[in-house]
Amino acid sequence: MTKVDAVLANALLPDGSRAHISISGGQISAIDAASSVIANQTPVLDLGGDVVLPGLCDGHLHLDKTLTGLPWMGHAAGPTRMSRIETDKTILPNLPLSTAERSVNLIRQCVAKGSAHLRSHVDIDLESRLTKLEGVLDARERCRDLATVQIVAFPQSGVMRRPGTLDLLDQAIAAGADLVGGIDPGEIDRDPKGQLDGIFAIAGRRGVGIDIHLHEPGELGLFNVHEICQRTKAAGMAGKVTISHGFCLGDVTESKARAAVAAMAEAGVMLVTHGAAGWALPPIAMMREAGVTVFAGNDDIRDTWSPYGTADVLERAALIGWRADFRRDDQIMIAYDMVTAAGARALGVADYGIKVGARANLCTVAAGSVPEAVAGYPPRKLVLHNGQVVARDGATLDRAQAPGRA
Amino acid sequence: MTKVDAVLANALLPDGSRAHISISGGQISAIDAASSVIANQTPVLDLGGDVVLPGLCDGHLHLDKTLTGLPWMGHAAGPTRMSRIETDKTILPNLPLSTAERSVNLIRQCVAKGSAHLRSHVDIDLESRLTKLEGVLDARERCRDLATVQIVAFPQSGVMRRPGTLDLLDQAIAAGADLVGGIDPGEIDRDPKGQLDGIFAIAGRRGVGIDIHLHEPGELGLFNVHEICQRTKAAGMAGKVTISHGFCLGDVTESKARAAVAAMAEAGVMLVTHGAAGWALPPIAMMREAGVTVFAGNDDIRDTWSPYGTADVLERAALIGWRADFRRDDQIMIAYDMVTAAGARALGVADYGIKVGARANLCTVAAGSVPEAVAGYPPRKLVLHNGQVVARDGATLDRAQAPGRA
Repeated sequence: MTKVDAVLANALLPDGSRAHISISGGQISAIDAASSVIANQTPVLDLGGDVVLPGLCDGHLHLDKTLTGLPWMGHAAGPTRMSRIETDKTILPNLPLSTAERSVNLIRQCVAKGSAHLRSHVDIDLESRLTKLEGVLDARERCRDLATVQIVAFPQSGVMRRPGTLDLLDQAIAAGADLVGGIDPGEIDRDPKGQLDGIFAIAGRRGVGIDIHLHEPGELGLFNVHEICQRTKAAGMAGKVTISHGFCLGDVTESKARAAVAAMAEAGVMLVTHGAAGWALPPIAMMREAGVTVFAGNDDIRDTWSPYGTADVLERAALIGWRADFRRDDQIMIAYDMVTAAGARALGVADYGIKVGARANLCTVAAGSVPEAVAGYPPRKLVLHNGQVVARDGATLDRAQAPGRA
Repeated sequence: MTKVDAVLANALLPDGSRAHISISGGQISAIDAASSVIANQTPVLDLGGDVVLPGLCDGHLHLDKTLTGLPWMGHAAGPTRMSRIETDKTILPNLPLSTAERSVNLIRQCVAKGSAHLRSHVDIDLESRLTKLEGVLDARERCRDLATVQIVAFPQSGVMRRPGTLDLLDQAIAAGADLVGGIDPGEIDRDPKGQLDGIFAIAGRRGVGIDIHLHEPGELGLFNVHEICQRTKAAGMAGKVTISHGFCLGDVTESKARAAVAAMAEAGVMLVTHGAAGWALPPIAMMREAGVTVFAGNDDIRDTWSPYGTADVLERAALIGWRADFRRDDQIMIAYDMVTAAGARALGVADYGIKVGARANLCTVAAGSVPEAVAGYPPRKLVLHNGQVVARDGATLDRAQAPGRA
């Protein structure tokens, strides 16, 4: 019989049932309704009926750009994306905290909000080469007991307009990045075919996935959605390619959006959204009905690109639900799925969820149901990673603690 | 010499200076940089350098619809506005908490988040007549030491399609409502002229302002913006008429929006926004440049219309800034102004701000500047109303306390 390390007693499960969750070796080893499972000697953490969620998934952020942990700095860039790209090159290398230090600060903040799995884009460009990647790899290692971090080698400054970038992206994968990135093949590179052929070639050669930023509006964006779907299908990369943002899907006619969404579903291309800010929101419910995996991420969190963002991806789910007009509980559950199971599927997280055999990555919220937890996003009372308590009452602990010990 | 009741020491003012704020008789009696102003016997509350904001203004909410304080209830209405209107008639009268009780719960939550001045719409219709108004008037009286509450007599179910409503709106003003409301004169009433003539007649006769919900999109909404401006100008009601939402201003061509905004500026018609959710956001910066007063409100807060909303209007300012692409500090200050000075101007709050002679309605935030306070909206550490501490660390106190006493 497996030795139980601890029991989370009186948990409200996402399905509405009440149970005690046993943890052994960092995994969920049992979920029982009867309290007889709690042996005398087992450490018990009484949740008092709080709802337990699986560790949250933040599928799109930028660890290397954050200013988390620094005194407030006003946004320095001009109003265009290109200005932000260029301004980063003077600001980021001269900050008093390193990429690794700032990334650790932000990972810890994400963990305090209940995130267990992150996908971070990291800038790869001719000036900084792989230095930001090295910083984020360092941060990932330092935070290995707190969260998993998937890294996208992200050509923020463009690919074809900056010869040498493709080679750097390839090196980034060799150095530890998990996916190849891309950005607006039309607007930034003025060469959709060149960029897409280039990044799909690296992905094919290295056997990794792709996550491409696509801010391009209307028909231009739609053109590139179809180009991405065609290449994904040809390469047999279903379930390994993500479009980040995809605002165009929200600002073309419904029939054109449906055609693009059908192509995404057929090719197995996924979408991640941060709620689209001032842009059009992709038609989330329609996309999911068509079979597209749609997940969520915070994107910028107090960084050189945006002063906003709290790192709370449950709050992000509420924001997306608000923008998507998800009012009923079953609709709020779509937003919830976007920051849990759908995100885990997109990020390739194995053994996910609240079930026997899953990693004991959990967070608890003082709420009577999942929709209530999403809509109001109260602070996470407890966050566990691999069965250890890593955050409490909204703050990450200095050292992970075994549950049930004071 | 005025007796000083208390001093808030070591405050960071919105302009970035540090000072001690003296309070006498519920007013700010002095703002001094030198600590010599602190007499030996004066109670002192040390703010430790936290930023002090004037009491926040929430310019659009619905106290009578909230479910605050009740166990979670899933959204029960269908997807249309008309379904929500009809569903309210079966749900709201049968809740286990009265209108007054739920309104008190929500006012207290708003106060915990630093709001000092609220404008609430209250449904007036043929079924409930003035009963909801009576409940909110009761709540306003019960919370008179916590916040000011301005009430709009709101014909949620329509005006012309429900004969008798105009008379009820008139009675509502006589019973204590402060403004006449209106709603989508085209989509709901199918009689723009009838509704607008009707509510402007009441406003003229009773000498009160108007706040009209205008969700209508595109050209239909724009038509009614111009109709409202024309009547406001004719009635000499500059500064007394508000359009709530005005989504149409964000979804017509720029030149048509500019023409409508110019008409609003000339007539003195104001706009309040909650950030527009899935609709188009009005062009806030352009409107303010044209001289239109634009302010902000939370709108639905966990109520029969929406499961979302935290009652935090500083968070709402961040959300509006995110949607409006306000990144620079000077842009964030626009969002800040929308929940402070512009809101106070719209609500007719006298003696507003952090200045000698103003009411001592304040809140404090652990932040190094106003932009940092807005972008991250940390919990309000202290909230004072008329010089008394009414909330602390995000929770409203059971009883107001004099500052500086334990």
